[in-house]
Amino acid sequence: MSAKKVWKGRFSKPTAPEMEAFSHSLEIDRRLYREDIQVNRAWAQALAQIGLLKARERDAILKGLDQIEKELEGGKFPFLPTDEDIHTAIERRLTEQVGPAGAKIHTGRSRNDQVITDLLLYLRRATEELITGIRRLQEVTVQRAEEHSEVLMPGYTHLQQAQPILFSHYALSLFWLLERDRQRLMAAQRRCGLMPLGSGALAGSGFPIDRHFLSEVLGFEEPSPNSLDATAHRDVPIEVAFAAALLLIHLSRYAADLILWASHEFGFVTIDEAYATGSSMMPQKRNPDSLELIRGKAAAAIGHLTALMSLCHGLPHGYNRDLQEDKRPLFAILDDARSSLEIFTRVWQTLDIQPEAMIQALDPDLLATELADYLTHRGMPFRKAHEIAGQIIRWSKSHNVPLTEIPLSTLRTFSYLFDEDLRHWLDFRAALERRSLYGGTGPEAVREQLEKAKQLLSQTTPEPESPEL
Amino acid sequence: MSAKKVWKGRFSKPTAPEMEAFSHSLEIDRRLYREDIQVNRAWAQALAQIGLLKARERDAILKGLDQIEKELEGGKFPFLPTDEDIHTAIERRLTEQVGPAGAKIHTGRSRNDQVITDLLLYLRRATEELITGIRRLQEVTVQRAEEHSEVLMPGYTHLQQAQPILFSHYALSLFWLLERDRQRLMAAQRRCGLMPLGSGALAGSGFPIDRHFLSEVLGFEEPSPNSLDATAHRDVPIEVAFAAALLLIHLSRYAADLILWASHEFGFVTIDEAYATGSSMMPQKRNPDSLELIRGKAAAAIGHLTALMSLCHGLPHGYNRDLQEDKRPLFAILDDARSSLEIFTRVWQTLDIQPEAMIQALDPDLLATELADYLTHRGMPFRKAHEIAGQIIRWSKSHNVPLTEIPLSTLRTFSYLFDEDLRHWLDFRAALERRSLYGGTGPEAVREQLEKAKQLLSQTTPEPESPEL
Amino acid sequence: MSAKKVWKGRFSKPTAPEMEAFSHSLEIDRRLYREDIQVNRAWAQALAQIGLLKARERDAILKGLDQIEKELEGGKFPFLPTDEDIHTAIERRLTEQVGPAGAKIHTGRSRNDQVITDLLLYLRRATEELITGIRRLQEVTVQRAEEHSEVLMPGYTHLQQAQPILFSHYALSLFWLLERDRQRLMAAQRRCGLMPLGSGALAGSGFPIDRHFLSEVLGFEEPSPNSLDATAHRDVPIEVAFAAALLLIHLSRYAADLILWASHEFGFVTIDEAYATGSSMMPQKRNPDSLELIRGKAAAAIGHLTALMSLCHGLPHGYNRDLQEDKRPLFAILDDARSSLEIFTRVWQTLDIQPEAMIQALDPDLLATELADYLTHRGMPFRKAHEIAGQIIRWSKSHNVPLTEIPLSTLRTFSYLFDEDLRHWLDFRAALERRSLYGGTGPEAVREQLEKAKQLLSQTTPEPESPEL
Amino acid sequence: MSAKKVWKGRFSKPTAPEMEAFSHSLEIDRRLYREDIQVNRAWAQALAQIGLLKARERDAILKGLDQIEKELEGGKFPFLPTDEDIHTAIERRLTEQVGPAGAKIHTGRSRNDQVITDLLLYLRRATEELITGIRRLQEVTVQRAEEHSEVLMPGYTHLQQAQPILFSHYALSLFWLLERDRQRLMAAQRRCGLMPLGSGALAGSGFPIDRHFLSEVLGFEEPSPNSLDATAHRDVPIEVAFAAALLLIHLSRYAADLILWASHEFGFVTIDEAYATGSSMMPQKRNPDSLELIRGKAAAAIGHLTALMSLCHGLPHGYNRDLQEDKRPLFAILDDARSSLEIFTRVWQTLDIQPEAMIQALDPDLLATELADYLTHRGMPFRKAHEIAGQIIRWSKSHNVPLTEIPLSTLRTFSYLFDEDLRHWLDFRAALERRSLYGGTGPEAVREQLEKAKQLLSQTTPEPESPEL
Repeated sequence: MSAKKVWKGRFSKPTAPEMEAFSHSLEIDRRLYREDIQVNRAWAQALAQIGLLKARERDAILKGLDQIEKELEGGKFPFLPTDEDIHTAIERRLTEQVGPAGAKIHTGRSRNDQVITDLLLYLRRATEELITGIRRLQEVTVQRAEEHSEVLMPGYTHLQQAQPILFSHYALSLFWLLERDRQRLMAAQRRCGLMPLGSGALAGSGFPIDRHFLSEVLGFEEPSPNSLDATAHRDVPIEVAFAAALLLIHLSRYAADLILWASHEFGFVTIDEAYATGSSMMPQKRNPDSLELIRGKAAAAIGHLTALMSLCHGLPHGYNRDLQEDKRPLFAILDDARSSLEIFTRVWQTLDIQPEAMIQALDPDLLATELADYLTHRGMPFRKAHEIAGQIIRWSKSHNVPLTEIPLSTLRTFSYLFDEDLRHWLDFRAALERRSLYGGTGPEAVREQLEKAKQLLSQTTPEPESPEL
Repeated sequence: MSAKKVWKGRFSKPTAPEMEAFSHSLEIDRRLYREDIQVNRAWAQALAQIGLLKARERDAILKGLDQIEKELEGGKFPFLPTDEDIHTAIERRLTEQVGPAGAKIHTGRSRNDQVITDLLLYLRRATEELITGIRRLQEVTVQRAEEHSEVLMPGYTHLQQAQPILFSHYALSLFWLLERDRQRLMAAQRRCGLMPLGSGALAGSGFPIDRHFLSEVLGFEEPSPNSLDATAHRDVPIEVAFAAALLLIHLSRYAADLILWASHEFGFVTIDEAYATGSSMMPQKRNPDSLELIRGKAAAAIGHLTALMSLCHGLPHGYNRDLQEDKRPLFAILDDARSSLEIFTRVWQTLDIQPEAMIQALDPDLLATELADYLTHRGMPFRKAHEIAGQIIRWSKSHNVPLTEIPLSTLRTFSYLFDEDLRHWLDFRAALERRSLYGGTGPEAVREQLEKAKQLLSQTTPEPESPEL
Repeated sequence: MSAKKVWKGRFSKPTAPEMEAFSHSLEIDRRLYREDIQVNRAWAQALAQIGLLKARERDAILKGLDQIEKELEGGKFPFLPTDEDIHTAIERRLTEQVGPAGAKIHTGRSRNDQVITDLLLYLRRATEELITGIRRLQEVTVQRAEEHSEVLMPGYTHLQQAQPILFSHYALSLFWLLERDRQRLMAAQRRCGLMPLGSGALAGSGFPIDRHFLSEVLGFEEPSPNSLDATAHRDVPIEVAFAAALLLIHLSRYAADLILWASHEFGFVTIDEAYATGSSMMPQKRNPDSLELIRGKAAAAIGHLTALMSLCHGLPHGYNRDLQEDKRPLFAILDDARSSLEIFTRVWQTLDIQPEAMIQALDPDLLATELADYLTHRGMPFRKAHEIAGQIIRWSKSHNVPLTEIPLSTLRTFSYLFDEDLRHWLDFRAALERRSLYGGTGPEAVREQLEKAKQLLSQTTPEPESPEL
Repeated sequence: MSAKKVWKGRFSKPTAPEMEAFSHSLEIDRRLYREDIQVNRAWAQALAQIGLLKARERDAILKGLDQIEKELEGGKFPFLPTDEDIHTAIERRLTEQVGPAGAKIHTGRSRNDQVITDLLLYLRRATEELITGIRRLQEVTVQRAEEHSEVLMPGYTHLQQAQPILFSHYALSLFWLLERDRQRLMAAQRRCGLMPLGSGALAGSGFPIDRHFLSEVLGFEEPSPNSLDATAHRDVPIEVAFAAALLLIHLSRYAADLILWASHEFGFVTIDEAYATGSSMMPQKRNPDSLELIRGKAAAAIGHLTALMSLCHGLPHGYNRDLQEDKRPLFAILDDARSSLEIFTRVWQTLDIQPEAMIQALDPDLLATELADYLTHRGMPFRKAHEIAGQIIRWSKSHNVPLTEIPLSTLRTFSYLFDEDLRHWLDFRAALERRSLYGGTGPEAVREQLEKAKQLLSQTTPEPESPEL
């Protein structure tokens, strides 16, 4: 069976072999085969509706597509070196199987509307996976927070110990961040709801295809309102890429924390051996490679997003072949987000948390804010109280006396407002409890927060809303 | 009046002058002064509610803030070289004005929660401006489309003439793209709705501040549920930056088209002199600098977004001073998006469109698809019809006979299916009319599209929904 | 044959399967096999020199490596699913073949120094290919410039016709740009000259390996001076990536020009059919896909460079697994640069240049600078002359009289300095000839430039200098 | 005094005020005033040489420029709102001062060649500053390495303790990295050596200016060989930006290390108070803000480089106004690199290093490689030895016996090769000494390395070579 270019008629010369190789995209776009078959099925029905296919031609095509799907699923599809991309490969194979009817499948459509339709269908599925993956990680997060709901640890800013917090409060900070990532992905998914098919190459199909039928049968919300807009732009794929890249960046920050906490010097957690790796040279090593790779993939995601945006920047209107280069970065971000989400979830779930190490790490200096707050409570303006507390810390350092062990008499030389009840303040747990306002690290506030998180998880996800257009 | 660092107590040594200069952010963050004063007002009330300020202290502070606002509005605020940022400048000035009460304003809060609260308030306002600006551009777009609703022009893919389209169809492609940009900005704006204030440096305020009151009085949706999440992350500002950057990229594509169309070779439009620029050397030049600058600023926006994402990538948890560097790129994107939107709107509105040049540019080859569609209509499989049409184009080139002037007898040597009625097909306007399906470039479809667009514009924008949290 | 992890001893639990998949890099790094074998050969000799391998063990290893190389070249290497990367796959296979001697090959080294040594060897070869490819494109450029050395065309700024230039001058602008790209690649290649092998994981090998021997036998300039520096940093690969990305950006600009020039409206060139592509829908299309893909790949390169830089930004010292992610973007840039260079060279070489179309496109307004220069020549201050020339252009537009056809009498109403000899100035070729200063577009200057370019090409490329360290 | 646009003649309408604001670049480019005056001086001389200025006109101009320079230096230059940029501001002022002679200064040149010439001059100076700054940091590095030449500390990979190293070896790793940064900056600086002036807007000046004279008097190497190349491209500024961005990324990695080492948990160093900052809320804090800001600015630099590359990607040939946007990112990178280099140097110089904390942090597991190397030394294949050492580490963990305290008898149950002399191996300093090969962390090797570094510093920097063109 011959496999000539679909556009060979106008050309008197074959494509140069190095150009074939250069423009070949099959390795990248073959993953769209399910969507392409789905689109072909719908298109065949739509053509039949307006008499461009006879019923038996349509049926032959539908049967042929079933067969092709089986071949592709089973890895038995006979790809030819001349197949430019998955779309022409499937059309070529269809024509081999069903003859002239196959040669009618491309009537009234273009690869431009076909490719972007396939892609949006793919993105709806890929974002669904990420949304589900986030939910799973949120569940594990709630679970880890509950298991260690009362574990104290140092909270950090600037990588310096700042104030005592609950580990569960730390864990839940990830929960809410993920919730926003989920919302962003759902919004991006909703915006994949406008169906481009029927837009032709740019101007709309030359045949009165029922685009509302196509939209419904393919599971879109509605047909896109403008054929140029539908084929020229890539804002929706870029929005998906952005939401996934941001998720990766968020994972990278928590990964960086766990890498640090797994160090000998911190020792707050141990990464499960199933997610750690050894060294080819140093026998003692147990490296948090899983987390480092997540951080690495987040860097790659920034690059891919940059590529996608640069691709569209200043590009003349209409489809340009540059846009073929959108798939490599887009698929890479989606793959990396999916696998990183899975690996992070597993690392987090199997993480061996060391509450004693966390508590032992607490430096009495963490209570300096309590000292200032105590004075404020006694009526001293905060700015003054902060300064005095600072001086006491300085004294404590230079006299090598921990904050909690400075005699009251000494403290009173800094301010006569200090009194016996101060010792109730200079206590890590008391400091926590003073932060029980909504959103704070106080045990009660965290319990409330945990309830709120669980409630959110128990809600059945609403149906994706229709796009506003 | 002294202007010592707010944190001077703990330090025995002053900051090095070069470090002062290095960490200085006043030039960048002074634009947040309105929001900072608003936050100070709310905070004073909240402190008074729980007795940390007496009523007269609160009133003195509120009066002082009014005064400071006037100074700042009038450019008369006495900034000192030692003011680190706008936040400490205002606190310093307040203390100068109202004495010890001023020194109480920072009770129970940190710059960490204060800065991000200011920033989110600012972003809500800045996104509102962009949303309004987009609406304005959409209105102008509809207006230009209506003015030239029946103007034919070549539609392009790969910068090659592809099929005839209506100019109004082209214009409306911008309308729908902008609608998605608007939706993205509105979603980002909604996500600015969680109020961080009361989160302290990381762990929550040490005083039982009523955060629901604060949220309401500042116009947020609700207080943020986790103090670490609220102070450590920048996902919401990054989302705003992304939505604005994508808008700029979209403007850059339409700008690139207009630059091209304003060239001598295309001649489809003339840029109004008010938005063009001459040359310092070549007296004849009338350059579309306005549009080129928009394209340039879109490139800058890609860079700024990259910076924001790199900033957060792998960063340890909690606030780190790196995050101070978020404002420069963020403000630059917002400024550039706002001004580019305005300039593009004005260029577009004043653009001198040349319908005759557009029509004259139409190449008969644009009708090649009609040739193939004709044969398909007559029952030939499209793939075959496409090939034959390609051969005819080849013949037309080599014999130097325009497609529309090839005798029927010659065409019939390619396919006996060609007949007299072909001439009704080989006509630019007929080609348009064949594309009257929903979303197509056919005049009727475009009229319908225009109605839909106008309807959308006439809807009052719904109140921003509450965030889902 | 067993294929356990090289670091299995310390672990009581196997790696999770999803972690295996996640950390697997074989698909990416297998292209380093040649270099890995080369490094193994050198290492075996170095171990033998200090008695860590017996002569027959060394010989067995060398023979085993020959065998493995053949297997890899022939696509017959028996990869196992448990092979983490190409380095452990080769070591595993070697041990299968030569027994205990194979188990000695990793003595005193680490994957850290091994991987970066392989990579630098690879980069030296890959940059050499690019350097050679650039030379080829420079040669084609000189050839095209010579073929069309006297062809006039409009020169553009702001995409507006600016002044007449020679096509050969345009072509040579690419020549000099490429020369700087070549210099940058040569500099990056030179900086690949410090050999990391013997640096171990971070601290240097524990055995007194002769690193100067290794450096020499592997073709490096010298051993790297600090083992931490050698294993922790990726500045040299990033520099290579930058030089290649910049080359791609440069090709993207010339590609964008040719895309534009191949449009119906410009018509200055025709892309050879061997490098053009048709449309699946529109039979007449001949799209410059080759050039569009180059432009697309340049966008990807910006992203890859961003990824590489983000990867290293803020990364803790020493090797971190994040760095595994350096290879995907690095190899992608190198592949894209190599193939784009080849395709651009072929498109450029086979380009059908249309001198008549170029000349016909020349707008008389291009001579406005001559008008101003004439007046300047007659003693009028340039700023005044420029203004008058501008007014004349304005008059010409409003009266619809081309600049070259305005009667002298009319011109004299603008300035009495105009005289008969003006007609010698208002001529495209005369305008060219007035720009014969060094570097200008005057025919003589271009001839000189062409000579200079040819001379540069005829020089044998100097041996790469030693690095300065 | 009037201040009309230099190109006003051809326009019948004024520029819109919002367009004035949009295209205004004076705030950004005014820093080029020194270079612009220098270029004007040279140009005046060159015009005089060919009779386009009379001697007294030239002298008046030179005197006027002196005056203008004084005004600008003293902050007394009377900028007008209508000044588009520094170049037209200076020309406008010159004409105010010297009358018609001033109106002649722009004869035969364009802002295109003028701006890029100014910029290259600026870059030569700015890179010189960075090169000098690097040398200073290298000197401080050598000094710190010498002060603590024998201090032991844990070396890390994957943020896990890996092997003992010398602090001085760590410090010197920065030295060599900086040396490559310096080389890259010098190469970029050399590539600034081709003088664009005389290239006009694109085609070369219309007057026979002596460009070799200009090049010499302005301190360039030679005039650029092609006027289009000289005005259309920005590869040289981008190369400078890249070299500076890479330097910033390198500083960010060492900054991240010091931030980590300054944490309570590591405690290896204390940042001098002059470069630390406190908290507005927590009195005890001493935050390494200086280093965090450096890390933040490195993220910004990645963004700026991305912007510069996106700006040029796919841009049509010749100068386009987009290129005005090159200055903001370029100047930002240069400023940030200069100030970060200075601040890092000061932090590094004043850093309080805690040798005892470093030594105390050494975990006996760091000696696991010695265990494996010992067995290898005794003839066991390394791969086997590594496995046994791994098992011993596992035993040590599960029995809670530090590696150095496992009885020989127990070790011998793992391998009979262990013997009394093992204790000479299981010692941190012995482990160091075993790594005395070239480039290793052994004390002797580090001494040698230090000598090499000092020697390099003592070399007078060679004159920048001429560019190869």
